[in-house]
Amino acid sequence: MKGFKIPEATISRLSVYSRYLESLYRKGITTVSSADIAQGVGVTSAQVRKDLAYFGEFGTRGVGYNVKELLDHTLKILGLNNTWNMVVVGAGNLGSALCAYRGFRERGFYIVGVFDNDLTKIGKKINEYEVLPIDHLEEVVRENNVEIGIIAVPAAYAQDVATRLVKAGVKGILNFAPTVLNIPDKIIVRSVDLTVNLEVLTFNIRRD
Amino acid sequence: MKGFKIPEATISRLSVYSRYLESLYRKGITTVSSADIAQGVGVTSAQVRKDLAYFGEFGTRGVGYNVKELLDHTLKILGLNNTWNMVVVGAGNLGSALCAYRGFRERGFYIVGVFDNDLTKIGKKINEYEVLPIDHLEEVVRENNVEIGIIAVPAAYAQDVATRLVKAGVKGILNFAPTVLNIPDKIIVRSVDLTVNLEVLTFNIRRD
Repeated sequence: MKGFKIPEATISRLSVYSRYLESLYRKGITTVSSADIAQGVGVTSAQVRKDLAYFGEFGTRGVGYNVKELLDHTLKILGLNNTWNMVVVGAGNLGSALCAYRGFRERGFYIVGVFDNDLTKIGKKINEYEVLPIDHLEEVVRENNVEIGIIAVPAAYAQDVATRLVKAGVKGILNFAPTVLNIPDKIIVRSVDLTVNLEVLTFNIRRD
Repeated sequence: MKGFKIPEATISRLSVYSRYLESLYRKGITTVSSADIAQGVGVTSAQVRKDLAYFGEFGTRGVGYNVKELLDHTLKILGLNNTWNMVVVGAGNLGSALCAYRGFRERGFYIVGVFDNDLTKIGKKINEYEVLPIDHLEEVVRENNVEIGIIAVPAAYAQDVATRLVKAGVKGILNFAPTVLNIPDKIIVRSVDLTVNLEVLTFNIRRD
């Protein structure tokens, strides 16, 4: 797949399909059509077939897909055939919401440390996680082979946290701070900007 | 623009450009080149020009864009030439983080009510917002001309909340629950799925 441009929207949908396939697998369902997947996740079946075609030939005409096989393929494509260790930096409301989110673990994402620089937060528990002082960040990242850092601090601190995460050795950053991070190209960054999401919404409302 | 397909990624970047232009305007800067915008937000200048071209002719060759004019254009395109009233349903960690987020108000998004069905949360204050019982949802939406509902409840409750929001009259929903909502086509929905975001990240890490 390397060097082959796959639309980001396709990857996002693949993640959604994959979780839908997982729910079918758990129910003991063994085959599924593109129409079933489409209905289950709310897209067209042409879209499902087009998205899956990026990754090779799946399924048998008139029979559909083998659920387990397609699930395994999607997990492999998404890099989920192994688990991922993550750290969360920022133990405010957003960091706390992330620590409480059960969906991560189900897909093999494990939070191994939560950090803050606020003395009133350090030592407190968020779910099963004790908030650690930010000074321990590098050590925890190295000792646990952490590949993903989640930034949930105010914008003013985000660049500093990103620089530390990169130096400590993470390969990817999920950034919730509303700021553009200046980091090396080899590090994958994905920003979750709540205002952008709202403005795509208002664009579409006004357009209608 | 109606009927003309504009990539969602373009709208997302337009939101980012718009906020960058706002920061320039506040600093008293009157003209800007596509290269300046590109550098300020971390994309290529070709990308900036391509994105803006969807919406007409802006700027003068060799001179650049008038900051105020381009800012006003972007705000209008994004539907931000007026303000938007919103409600947040769910007063847990995520709902609290949303209420504390300052970026919304700066762009004209006003939270006018925060709701929960949990008696231990109702009546408590999150920033300046008192958590209201969910029974008051419809009344608050109608009386305040609320057009956007934000769903920050567990997945199991999301569909019920969405149905109530639509019935009360919202035009758009920002959904943080990891579930597909079944609602009428005329309502714009945007889902912020944290697992999808992580999986796009891991896809790109493994791909590298």
